Amino acid sequence: MSAPIDFYFDFSSPYGYLASERIEAIAARHGRSVDWHPMLLGVVFKHTGAAPLTMIPLKGDYSRRDMERSARFHGVSEFRMPSKFPIPSQAPARIVLWQKQRDLALAASLVHALYRAFFVDDIDISVPDNAVAAAAKCGINATAARAAIDDPTVKDALRQANDDAMARGVFGSPFIIVDGEPFWGLDRLDQVERWLITGGW
Amino acid sequence: MSAPIDFYFDFSSPYGYLASERIEAIAARHGRSVDWHPMLLGVVFKHTGAAPLTMIPLKGDYSRRDMERSARFHGVSEFRMPSKFPIPSQAPARIVLWQKQRDLALAASLVHALYRAFFVDDIDISVPDNAVAAAAKCGINATAARAAIDDPTVKDALRQANDDAMARGVFGSPFIIVDGEPFWGLDRLDQVERWLITGGW
Repeated sequence: MSAPIDFYFDFSSPYGYLASERIEAIAARHGRSVDWHPMLLGVVFKHTGAAPLTMIPLKGDYSRRDMERSARFHGVSEFRMPSKFPIPSQAPARIVLWQKQRDLALAASLVHALYRAFFVDDIDISVPDNAVAAAAKCGINATAARAAIDDPTVKDALRQANDDAMARGVFGSPFIIVDGEPFWGLDRLDQVERWLITGGW
Repeated sequence: MSAPIDFYFDFSSPYGYLASERIEAIAARHGRSVDWHPMLLGVVFKHTGAAPLTMIPLKGDYSRRDMERSARFHGVSEFRMPSKFPIPSQAPARIVLWQKQRDLALAASLVHALYRAFFVDDIDISVPDNAVAAAAKCGINATAARAAIDDPTVKDALRQANDDAMARGVFGSPFIIVDGEPFWGLDRLDQVERWLITGGW
């Protein structure tokens, strides 16, 4: 099997959620797996001067409409904008990073469980206990997951993950890297797939 | 024939250029024409707080790479980033608005001629004489076109065009409206086409 596809995302990113529902099938069609990289877009936005899409004049109204329409376009049947948005995403990001060091398959299930808790069930996963409850449904030990959120080594791991992402040029969510080639956005999945087929064009 | 597709664009927009090379074929497949709306993104950016893509940290490097790759992905064989970029686009925008009041078919040819002068031949079309020279190649009277650039009524028409665009929610380039439904970006052409087929989903 070739190298995994790197999938960078923020748990507060609607387009990140939508792409997370499609990327594994795309990867699998071409013999690839997905390496999930949670990160904090807020840290990157301080560097690039960007703001959450929905808070920008004109763009905000459009983006809410486009997110709903794009969900249907991409065949993601369950999606709704959370009532609290955007949220800080340290808690879910830390649980995933902690879980990745234990069981990669379970970490992938965890990404989906957390994303769906937020974008399907409207659960505020920025609240540690809510994030832990979603993790527990995947079979993860709740006490250990709750401790991981406040663990200084896990906090450091998230800081390092943000630095590593920016060092690779990541500035948005989703951000996908295939064999060194960077693709930003849900709307680049068609180019991601062609890259996997052709190795470039 | 159904209502035309509204195509809003800035002459300094690479993704606007790439979409301009594809939109007429998409429209024609579904019995539509294209109404070309030149505008000034700089005016909109003052309202939304946006900046030219290529000038943003991280995003700038990515976007230059993505523009070249997207040109090839969308089958636009001729594209290169101009040596001077971005440029103010009052001169070409005014010639097009002036020409639209005289001959719509010729105005469409003019859009392509001006865009290609900038993104294929690396001609700085912000210089009035350069924009006029590109217009003259389409069979437009050079003296009249040159006068139009400084004509107060044409200047007013461009201000009005910017106001009208923002009133319709336009905040980027290309920005396409199909029967009231807004689509932002080259990467929404697939959704534009599906909308033309289905009338919504």
